[in-house]
Amino acid sequence: MMPDPGLASWLQLSLTPGLGPSSLRSLLKRFGLPQAVLARKRAELTAFMTPAVVEALDSERVAQSVARALEWAAAPGHEIVTLADDTYPKALLEIGDPPPLLYAHGDVSLLQRPAIAVVGSRNATAQGESNAAQFAKALSDAGLAVVSGLALGIDAAAHRGGLAGRGSTLAVLGTGVDVVYPTRNAELAAEIARKGLLLSEFPLGTPAAAHNFPRRNRLISGLTRGCLVVEAALPSGSLITARFAAEQGREVFAIPGSIHSPLSKGCHSLIKSGAKLVESAEDVLAELSGFRPSGYASTAMETANADIGLLAVMGHDPVDVDSLCERAGWSAEQVTSELLRLELDGRVTALPGGLYQRLEKAPRG
Amino acid sequence: MMPDPGLASWLQLSLTPGLGPSSLRSLLKRFGLPQAVLARKRAELTAFMTPAVVEALDSERVAQSVARALEWAAAPGHEIVTLADDTYPKALLEIGDPPPLLYAHGDVSLLQRPAIAVVGSRNATAQGESNAAQFAKALSDAGLAVVSGLALGIDAAAHRGGLAGRGSTLAVLGTGVDVVYPTRNAELAAEIARKGLLLSEFPLGTPAAAHNFPRRNRLISGLTRGCLVVEAALPSGSLITARFAAEQGREVFAIPGSIHSPLSKGCHSLIKSGAKLVESAEDVLAELSGFRPSGYASTAMETANADIGLLAVMGHDPVDVDSLCERAGWSAEQVTSELLRLELDGRVTALPGGLYQRLEKAPRG
Repeated sequence: MMPDPGLASWLQLSLTPGLGPSSLRSLLKRFGLPQAVLARKRAELTAFMTPAVVEALDSERVAQSVARALEWAAAPGHEIVTLADDTYPKALLEIGDPPPLLYAHGDVSLLQRPAIAVVGSRNATAQGESNAAQFAKALSDAGLAVVSGLALGIDAAAHRGGLAGRGSTLAVLGTGVDVVYPTRNAELAAEIARKGLLLSEFPLGTPAAAHNFPRRNRLISGLTRGCLVVEAALPSGSLITARFAAEQGREVFAIPGSIHSPLSKGCHSLIKSGAKLVESAEDVLAELSGFRPSGYASTAMETANADIGLLAVMGHDPVDVDSLCERAGWSAEQVTSELLRLELDGRVTALPGGLYQRLEKAPRG
Repeated sequence: MMPDPGLASWLQLSLTPGLGPSSLRSLLKRFGLPQAVLARKRAELTAFMTPAVVEALDSERVAQSVARALEWAAAPGHEIVTLADDTYPKALLEIGDPPPLLYAHGDVSLLQRPAIAVVGSRNATAQGESNAAQFAKALSDAGLAVVSGLALGIDAAAHRGGLAGRGSTLAVLGTGVDVVYPTRNAELAAEIARKGLLLSEFPLGTPAAAHNFPRRNRLISGLTRGCLVVEAALPSGSLITARFAAEQGREVFAIPGSIHSPLSKGCHSLIKSGAKLVESAEDVLAELSGFRPSGYASTAMETANADIGLLAVMGHDPVDVDSLCERAGWSAEQVTSELLRLELDGRVTALPGGLYQRLEKAPRG
């Protein structure tokens, strides 16, 4: 799309090394739009930044960065949204430090959709990932965009669930929007760029750096009406996101688990501090004030119930094929073929020793 | 011990068919102690009961019941405590409908000890029973008497944990105190009579009847400062106890679990309604205002840590012996012998197919 004529000025200010977002907001507050800032005599700007930063403003290096960003933004599906744009997400305007620029790749209309954060551990359990995907799918089907951080584990499962539903998904990156991190999620990132939205406040090409991720987390919560933590250790980045959510006045939700699971400790700690314990997506939706779920499809639930035969006789403990034949009154062929189907469908997992165990799907809200 | 000289009058009133606890309390309120009630002209009593009941008061049948109860109370370890006795538990005086009489078998001094209810499902999981025993042991060691209902499952495990600690245990029965129900807990009941206390408000010989158990549950909560629900389905008797606890101004605690476990649904429902989510006995103790845990022994924790070697490499999923040998760098003999020891110690459970899985002990508060 055609760039906003003032975009070059926004980029010039934001890409000047040493000129951080808070200095930029001070400049905008004092002088108005970036074009007005840049029209000022440079000496006037020294009240807001060091002489070295003022000098950098008009450097060749910054000019080149601006040119590259404008070139990037001209490509289809790419957009740079500024604080002054109508498309800037309203939810972010409520937080203390909204980023001046957002680099977006994908369906920018998602910035206007009511959203829910679904986050959790990178080292999630299989059950945790299954829960994340199921909650995200149901929340997405209710019309919410699912926001997460493109990390391995819970984040990736949440994005996949969001993509599978009507509300789609939004990945907020701690790198430049053109950098895929972690690389194992490259395919997922490509799918999100096609069907959802990749978003970052960091300049193009920004590599992964530990200190950028907590900063990024405030956007994950800031974009949303609430933050669901699926599995989290103590301490963990997900708890940082949840803390931002609480500070930003968003609802915080947590899924409980065994008191012996290290990955439930973070969720339990949140519940002790006032987060809502949730057992289903419906529990989450019930707490989102002013949000009315739209067009609930019942197909997923119906599909889930079709498999109930073998699953029901499996119970919740590891079990072998012989026992299943006996319980279901089926032949070994029938049982193994059904087990394979359920395994491919992520409903059953194979354990060492020829045992199988149910992998529960989350109750669908 | 020598019976209170007025005890026969208490018994005569309370054992008269048709004269319930609330009528009895009305009589006491009007006339004073039971002896004073019985000194009244029978015609005067018809304002409080039907003529048939008045007639029954002086019947041979009631006289025989009184004689049998007095005989029972004269045996060592037996005691009938009335509302007028100094030994009547103070906590029960706070509830709306304190029973006029308590039949006690065991250490009556436990009625004066600060107490905590630990309750849950009869059809508990192995992990749930282990949690119940560990929480109960730690709470008992902190000086609390553990109160439960002598049911199978969580109740039985809670009593065992209480017996293993310093604070002992108190079983409140829904039958006569001389009736053991369920019979599978006969040995446990005998041990509680020796080292703890069996307690009932029901006349001697009262058999198990469904409607008496919810009524009994109000005493389980009423005797305590708080009620911990370990595992509970929806709906369940444990939730009735928890509701009584909340109505009586007691703290309610619940242990969370998987959102897919039917036995966690009751606990999650309680937490959603305001019960405290607890992960350890320490969490419970921290909430019991005015109760200061006494003489914490650290031995149990030290013992628990000694086994950490093989347990640590077991992780939390089912695993076979070969994998354990590889992970621990031990011989198969070493691993199997250690597994047996851990199994006997209730730390590990054997699954079909030659697999083993950790059975977690609750974090000790």
